[in-house]
Parts: sequence; C-alpha cells; structure tokens
Amino acid sequence: MRKKVNAAILIIGNEILSGRTQDKNIAFISKWLNTNCGIIVEEVRIIPDIEKTIVKNVISLSKKFSYVFTTGGIGPTHDDITAQSISKAFKVKYEYHKEAFRILEKYYSKKKFNDGRKKMAMMPRGSKLILNPSSAAPGFIIKNVLSLPGVPSILNSMIENCKKYLIKGLKIHSKTLNLFTVESNISKELGQIQKKCKKFVDIGSYPFFRLGKIGVAIVTRSTSLKKLIKVNSQISKLAKVKKIKIFTR
Amino acid sequence: MRKKVNAAILIIGNEILSGRTQDKNIAFISKWLNTNCGIIVEEVRIIPDIEKTIVKNVISLSKKFSYVFTTGGIGPTHDDITAQSISKAFKVKYEYHKEAFRILEKYYSKKKFNDGRKKMAMMPRGSKLILNPSSAAPGFIIKNVLSLPGVPSILNSMIENCKKYLIKGLKIHSKTLNLFTVESNISKELGQIQKKCKKFVDIGSYPFFRLGKIGVAIVTRSTSLKKLIKVNSQISKLAKVKKIKIFTR
Repeated sequence: MRKKVNAAILIIGNEILSGRTQDKNIAFISKWLNTNCGIIVEEVRIIPDIEKTIVKNVISLSKKFSYVFTTGGIGPTHDDITAQSISKAFKVKYEYHKEAFRILEKYYSKKKFNDGRKKMAMMPRGSKLILNPSSAAPGFIIKNVLSLPGVPSILNSMIENCKKYLIKGLKIHSKTLNLFTVESNISKELGQIQKKCKKFVDIGSYPFFRLGKIGVAIVTRSTSLKKLIKVNSQISKLAKVKKIKIFTR
Repeated sequence: MRKKVNAAILIIGNEILSGRTQDKNIAFISKWLNTNCGIIVEEVRIIPDIEKTIVKNVISLSKKFSYVFTTGGIGPTHDDITAQSISKAFKVKYEYHKEAFRILEKYYSKKKFNDGRKKMAMMPRGSKLILNPSSAAPGFIIKNVLSLPGVPSILNSMIENCKKYLIKGLKIHSKTLNLFTVESNISKELGQIQKKCKKFVDIGSYPFFRLGKIGVAIVTRSTSLKKLIKVNSQISKLAKVKKIKIFTR
C-alpha cells in the first residue's frame, strides 16, 4: 500500500527575499507534486545566497521530509553556490560530474565552453542528473535532495525528469465549494464538521471577492474520496439550511 | 547611528503550501520594509495550519530576527489558529482584547456580533493592536511578532499601521544594470569584483529574456551609496571592455 510522502521546498535567492522577483516556483512545484506524485509539500523556506545558511537548511529539511526541492543558485556566477553548499551539507566532494561536463561541452562547443559554463558541471560527488531540455545545464539529485534552477520556464521544462527519482504517495483528492456568505456566518458549524472528520478530511476556509460579491471558498482535501464526498454533502446541507447560494467549480 | 535591523516572514496557510493560492504577501512586505524602514527580510517560511508547527516556528524565528511578520490564520473559522498558537509560543493567556472587542462590536453592531466574529478579538495577553482600515478586524503585535491577515488587499491596507512599532534600520540603496549578454561571459570578472567589495556591496546576477533578447540583470545593494556607485562604475567598465550593451532602469 502507498504511504504518505511529503516534501519541503527550499528557495535560494536574495532576489525573492528582497521582493524584487515574485516567486512562481512554489505553487508550480507544489501543484505538480500533488497532482502527479501524491506528494504533499509541508514546508517552504526562502533563504539568502549564504553558504552557512544553505548548509544548515539542507541538513535540517532533508532529515525532516521525504524529499527536499531546492531552486536557484546553480548557474555560472559567484552568487550560485547551491551545489557547493549541498556538498558541504552531505560532506561529499564538490567536483566535475562527467556526464554533466560532456552534455555542456557538447551544447556550447569546446571553444565556447569557458570557466563559468564549466562551473555548471560541478556537483556533489554521487549526484544523479536531472536533465534540462531547454538550456542544457542539468539539475541534480543527491540523497533525498533535488536541485533545480530558479528561472521558472527552465524549471518547468525539467520537472518531469524528477519523476523517476520519486516514490509516489497516496493520491490526494480535493474539492472546492464556493459559498456566497461571510466566514463568520458558518464558522461555528464548519468547525463542528471539521472536528468530527479531523483524521480523514482537511477543511480550509478562504474568503474571496468575486464580481462584487463576497464569498467563502471551502476547500476539502483527503486521501479518501468517499469521506471527502460525505463531508462535502454535510457542507452543502449546512448551506441549504442557512439559505446560502453555492457555486461549484 | 542606525543599526542593521532584520526580519522574517512566516506565512501560515495550507492554501499557499498546496499551490492553490499564489502568495503575494512576501514580495509586498519585503519591499515595504526595505523601502520604508530599512529592514531586510532574511528568511521566509511557509507552514501549514498546525498549532505545534506554528508554535515551534514563532519561537525559533522570534529569537533569530529583530521582527517576525506572520500572515494568515486570524479570521473567524476553525482553521484560524495563529493568535492562539502565538499565545502558546510566548506562554501567555489567549483572551479577549478589550479594544479589539469594542472595535468589532461597533463595526458589526451588537446584534450581528456572533461567536465567529468575537473570535477575531481573541489575542495573546499583552498584545497591541495593528488597526485595520478596510475590514475592522485588527492584527496585533506581541514582543517582536506582528500578526497580519492573509488576504493581500486587507494586509496592504494595514501595513502602514505597523510602522510605529518598528525601529528603523539603515537605508539600503539598490541599483540594477541590465547587460545584454549571458552570465557565463562575465561570471569570472564579476566574481572578482564581488570578492573585493564583499563586506560593503552585495552583487546579484539574474538572467532574463526580454523582447527576444537574452540578458543579465546585475543588482547591487549596499547601505553605502558611495561604494554602490563605485562598484557600478566597475561593472559598467567591464561591460565596455567586453563590448556589452547596457540598459539601465
């Protein structure tokens, strides 16, 4: 039987922390893992390009979760220090990966394969490659840590190549009911429903504003489709009693 | 003289972790703190609505940083457990805040002030209010932890009311030079420039694609404007030598 498999995402980059760049990788990776692998992201951290900080976070997250996905810091410049930091975290040599070197040498041609580009073939010893169909420079996996680039379009093109390294978890079913009401009108009864199904179904309540109307999106998530349906019928019943309109997506 | 003041952001909410909702608060808070208060965000964590997890993260981040900003989990429903979790983290009573209670009672009128809405006046003992000009329910500050709601439009309307509780840090100057080249063409020399000014200026290198052209944004940040200008002239000189076009924003 499949077990619960979880993951953490470690975003490495001053540009996200400073607010200069709006992160797009968290939602993408999380949705992809959930839909394709039944893996739940349970923690995200965004940290600066500081070796000591990367090492500490890689060690602690890799102990706590089934997988850790890092993004950013695997390019050719001085602030790209993810691979060397992960090598330190796992106390392995930081060296040229032969296959990565060959891929990059072929892509750039021998003449244009300068030191900056060669740096992208440096990885922790024992890494396996995550191939990059868009710009050649591969990511890598070592132990339970998968390293991907920070540029969303490149990361998106590589994500399918992570699949073969991942153990699949239980499929997570999800349903959203949009209720045209305010949270405080249903919070008491919703809390009672959640209390009863606590172990099986997770109920989230998120206010929204749409077409000038105020509403609440009730998101239910469970590995049991049967229990999910049961809880959703309880919520629909509650809406009916309170004369609240429902809009289902 | 002003000192370096830093902060962490703790995003509380399953909807961000699952990828259902795209976070917009990180970039907003970070930019606002940087521009208005000279405060640098040095770590972000996104965690689920689980009391034990919130308590642990509030304790560790509040010890490590000058300020911690939490977002989410201060509404009326069962999954809003930020205030009670922060009470546990600081071992203080979770109780009605008199002023918050009065504000909410007035806003909703006595008749419509139900249990769900009353819950939004429950806070850690000793909290001071962060007033909410858009939907009344206040945020709060206790010790060095400031709690704000998760809905971006409401959070944005409240951020100015955080200012009076914050000590200002040194102003951080920033400049971006867009070079129409690839990273590996300048990585060596850029690394040398960074090495020399390591203590004063932080240089980031971020590839971009714009109008069908490939480029690199070189972002420099420093508390010394003089040193920032010096480093930028070195980078401009490097571009000139390499015959790289510069586009300045």
